[in-house]
Amino acid sequence: MNAGIIIIGDEILIGQVVDINSSWISREMNKIGFRTETVITVGDDGKSISDAIDKCFEVADVVFMTGGLGPTKDDITKKVICEKFGTELVLNEQVLANVAEMLGRRGIALTENNRGQALVPATATVINNAVGTAPGIMMEVPSNSLPERSRRVELVGRNKLLFSMPGVPFEMRYLMEHEIIPQIKKHYNLKPVFHKTLLLTGIAESILAEKISDWEDSLDKNVKLAYLPAYSSIRLRLSVYEPDDNTEAYISAKVEELKRIVPENIIAYEDIKLEELVGKLLKEKHCMVATAESCTGGKVASLITSISGSSEYYKGSVVSYCNEVKADVLGVSRADLEKYGAVSSTVAEQMASGVRRLLKTDYAVATTGIAGPTGGSDEKPVGTVWIAVATPTRVVSRKYVFGKDRSINIERFAASALSMLIVEMEK
Amino acid sequence: MNAGIIIIGDEILIGQVVDINSSWISREMNKIGFRTETVITVGDDGKSISDAIDKCFEVADVVFMTGGLGPTKDDITKKVICEKFGTELVLNEQVLANVAEMLGRRGIALTENNRGQALVPATATVINNAVGTAPGIMMEVPSNSLPERSRRVELVGRNKLLFSMPGVPFEMRYLMEHEIIPQIKKHYNLKPVFHKTLLLTGIAESILAEKISDWEDSLDKNVKLAYLPAYSSIRLRLSVYEPDDNTEAYISAKVEELKRIVPENIIAYEDIKLEELVGKLLKEKHCMVATAESCTGGKVASLITSISGSSEYYKGSVVSYCNEVKADVLGVSRADLEKYGAVSSTVAEQMASGVRRLLKTDYAVATTGIAGPTGGSDEKPVGTVWIAVATPTRVVSRKYVFGKDRSINIERFAASALSMLIVEMEK
Repeated sequence: MNAGIIIIGDEILIGQVVDINSSWISREMNKIGFRTETVITVGDDGKSISDAIDKCFEVADVVFMTGGLGPTKDDITKKVICEKFGTELVLNEQVLANVAEMLGRRGIALTENNRGQALVPATATVINNAVGTAPGIMMEVPSNSLPERSRRVELVGRNKLLFSMPGVPFEMRYLMEHEIIPQIKKHYNLKPVFHKTLLLTGIAESILAEKISDWEDSLDKNVKLAYLPAYSSIRLRLSVYEPDDNTEAYISAKVEELKRIVPENIIAYEDIKLEELVGKLLKEKHCMVATAESCTGGKVASLITSISGSSEYYKGSVVSYCNEVKADVLGVSRADLEKYGAVSSTVAEQMASGVRRLLKTDYAVATTGIAGPTGGSDEKPVGTVWIAVATPTRVVSRKYVFGKDRSINIERFAASALSMLIVEMEK
Repeated sequence: MNAGIIIIGDEILIGQVVDINSSWISREMNKIGFRTETVITVGDDGKSISDAIDKCFEVADVVFMTGGLGPTKDDITKKVICEKFGTELVLNEQVLANVAEMLGRRGIALTENNRGQALVPATATVINNAVGTAPGIMMEVPSNSLPERSRRVELVGRNKLLFSMPGVPFEMRYLMEHEIIPQIKKHYNLKPVFHKTLLLTGIAESILAEKISDWEDSLDKNVKLAYLPAYSSIRLRLSVYEPDDNTEAYISAKVEELKRIVPENIIAYEDIKLEELVGKLLKEKHCMVATAESCTGGKVASLITSISGSSEYYKGSVVSYCNEVKADVLGVSRADLEKYGAVSSTVAEQMASGVRRLLKTDYAVATTGIAGPTGGSDEKPVGTVWIAVATPTRVVSRKYVFGKDRSINIERFAASALSMLIVEMEK
């Protein structure tokens, strides 16, 4: 089954806002067996929106629209839907009550603009928005109401579906998770999809593909394998779209086989971010961690603290962007800084031990490298980083060499630091 | 004039990679007077790409494609171009030499796959890629080679232009800046556009719009004003698309008028990021800065160090995610932590003073707040942050209250910290 996505907003077409909704929707829909065929971004303009709906339905069974629902934008999306599908806006009392209550809690009186948010197309199903004032909308679209070109991929016996949602990412996500995905499953009578995700590190995608190619060929035809590479890690996702009673046991057996092929590389058996896994392992161990960062400049700390509840296991970081701070605050030896340079195994290890001691934690991870674009040498080119992990029993360090792009290097250095910490904790 | 953008890649349609190319292209093209009419994302599939080209040319004079040029993807984009515009792939010796040299520098031998990168459509203009192996391509597209619907917005007397670029962001940016934008200016004989950008802080967009509405109305008709809001700052961009000898003086006078209307809010007279402005001001003053972060968890440090050369003025940070670190490392009074709580003016100020003293800097900025979603109270709800700035002569602090979303709060807290630091430095 196919999905199409329409992102509405002038602010996106002038490059002021980066669209993060379409990738999220694609990822979530992929999990229930939908393939996104196209994403079309258009401005706050009726004809463009209407054309985009036609174009999406040419290739998709379900179309998601985000944006164009705010009180200031004159609710253009809802008007377009009405004109396109021959209906009209009517006041929905339940939505109005929700808007009034939301505003009331913030001590704001209802304006005419806000009343507009309670107007919905008469033939639409309203999707309650518990986290904002603009409701979501679902239209069942009979294929004969679409241009001829759009009828080709019609799912026999079911109307196509059009969803309109607010553009605010967390409101969109709330509606998708709590209301829309369940509705889609019900409408198309979808069977649950079985997924098993493994998280791997320390191996390049191409090498992994080669190593596991026989194993991959041995998988049942109804098992789909997806490689999802990220900085310093790869997710392998096994999906079974029509699972039966044996599926779970079959997949478990296949995972056991895989463990024998790449025993060093699997760090998790679930779909989890590196920074979440760090937290999970620390909580299991009732341990605390600290970080000492040079070249990553706070990125490792920022990733760890992006997780709600991280104060349970994260004490803090010393970002030592100059050697003076490495020596004065972290206690790195000035002689070693001189002798080996800041980007060295010795300094990385002393930074990790130093911050572990200073912040009184069980674990610590440290980074020191050259993010670029300047500062490299023949011996230590841009993209070089030393990462050290201090544990209750030992200190280890490792060198990585990445590319030339500063922002990508910082991302990779930070992800590698989290991976190394995880590997040490799992030993 | 209108632009269209086609983003090619299965990895984008499954939500694995967020497209950041289209917003960058839109922003840059906007500066030379183009409006992006649509962005279409499609998979690595010939028919989808071909259809997207038609759809884009229906509304655009210039179409940009990124992706589908890598050695592993079988160069599908170039094949589509050949089929569509009745030409064939030919080996370009100059591109081959560039590919061989690039690989040679990394000690890699030329493979058949790499030779494929030197194949280009015979009628295309090759755009040299000095930072990668895949070349860019420019096709002049006569409107009579496009479907009838696509001919409507043809620029009289000029062919439409189709550009194909690698999907790697920094390669795409290199090609756009060094080759493609100059080619477009030349092809369409574009006059330079005059832009003046002002950076403002400490004022909401709606209040700013109200305050300056008379001034806005007084602007010459050929001056376009754009509001570009970001976290904790707003850019105002004045654009004149057909500048003459008086333009600069006229805009300067208008900026002077604006300074009288919002004297407290303008922090820069150029298009600059907050973290870049922090660096610029510190370099001008020959001063160093440090940060102490609680709720922002390293985000402020991360922003400052995202700028190349930041080691010239940034010494480091203490991320004190727990009170123990605030007291032990930064020297915040335990009694005050107890009495006022960690999220307080007193603690923020002691954190700023503490890190300024510890890292021996001229300036310091500190954050302490509740990013959420948990940890709030009636008195200090989620979204509350205290920010303090320590200067050579004083320490100031201020409270802000934002929303409920953790990641957005962290972004806003960090941007507000940079803004406060800038305002203090400019005093």
